[in-house]
Amino acid sequence: MIQPARPRTDPEETRARILEVAEEFFRRVGYQKTSVADIATELGMSPANIYRFFPSKGAINECICGRVVEEVAEFAFGIARSSNPASEKLVRLLTAIHIHNKATLLKEKRTHDMIVAAMQENWSIIKAHIERITTIVEGIIREGVAAGEFDVEDPAEAARCVKTAFVPFFHPMLIENCMQNGEDTEAGLREQMGFILKALGKRD
Amino acid sequence: MIQPARPRTDPEETRARILEVAEEFFRRVGYQKTSVADIATELGMSPANIYRFFPSKGAINECICGRVVEEVAEFAFGIARSSNPASEKLVRLLTAIHIHNKATLLKEKRTHDMIVAAMQENWSIIKAHIERITTIVEGIIREGVAAGEFDVEDPAEAARCVKTAFVPFFHPMLIENCMQNGEDTEAGLREQMGFILKALGKRD
Repeated sequence: MIQPARPRTDPEETRARILEVAEEFFRRVGYQKTSVADIATELGMSPANIYRFFPSKGAINECICGRVVEEVAEFAFGIARSSNPASEKLVRLLTAIHIHNKATLLKEKRTHDMIVAAMQENWSIIKAHIERITTIVEGIIREGVAAGEFDVEDPAEAARCVKTAFVPFFHPMLIENCMQNGEDTEAGLREQMGFILKALGKRD
Repeated sequence: MIQPARPRTDPEETRARILEVAEEFFRRVGYQKTSVADIATELGMSPANIYRFFPSKGAINECICGRVVEEVAEFAFGIARSSNPASEKLVRLLTAIHIHNKATLLKEKRTHDMIVAAMQENWSIIKAHIERITTIVEGIIREGVAAGEFDVEDPAEAARCVKTAFVPFFHPMLIENCMQNGEDTEAGLREQMGFILKALGKRD
């Protein structure tokens, strides 16, 4: 009698299971306190086996954070696609990102810590995220220029400057610092948005 | 025969000597690796005696960093007092602060680390410094408005926005991050200055 072949585990499936268990650990125990050995034990695997898929704990975090920032990019694209005037889209977009990052800090401290770890260990993924958001901002500025709403010579340069002027409302560690000092970040953002729109040549 | 009274040590003098020895240790050994016991031993004092003057190592660092940022405030006042147009003063001031903070990082890494420690442990002194620089910026904006160079409704609000838009070039940890990633911060600052001047209503 021929035994049915035992199905081999699909590498993609193993990878997905490692990420799932790691994310669950990072969110429950915290990124810093989780070791690759913890993840391996939970999966009934050896740490060496995990390292066949991910060279380090940082590399696991990079994948998880990649998905977290993907969600932000998705709602950013959603706002950019809406049919509002460019200045309104820009205010909505930057406000939504600030509120999202602040809510992560307040309600999902573990996720916040994962992002902070990624900023230190996997800058490439954070850099790519910032560049993506900056490109979305550039698209909105170009629309505003085409509609005569903004007066900007170089939309790519203007988008980089908007991104830089917005750093204190975007950067998780700076938001954390502001909140620890009891500052009203949303009032600050409203002022900053007025300043940014003026720099984009928007008339009152 | 009457012995001459042994002169009592002046508390102000002891305080100054503690600061001097501590600063020497922080710059040579590093802030994190220096303990209050090290400073006490060097001075031939007990740690308890040091604590009569300063409640913690952080409190010692606060005083030392207070002097470091005082130097920055002094050259900022110097630029503000010069007889150049307001926009030129603003560019000079922000450029000088950025170059100063970057040079501290590159050439006086220990001082940079002291400032980073103060940002985490003694926010009040850093906050006071930022507020002072923001007030100097406000003064320059007011001059520019009076001279018809800038078009700004609320100079205090505009100064806060300039400060916020300038954070990535001012904040020691953000400068460090940019430099680790090989970014040209000075080119970024030139772009940002153009953006800031436009937001202040300066015409090309």
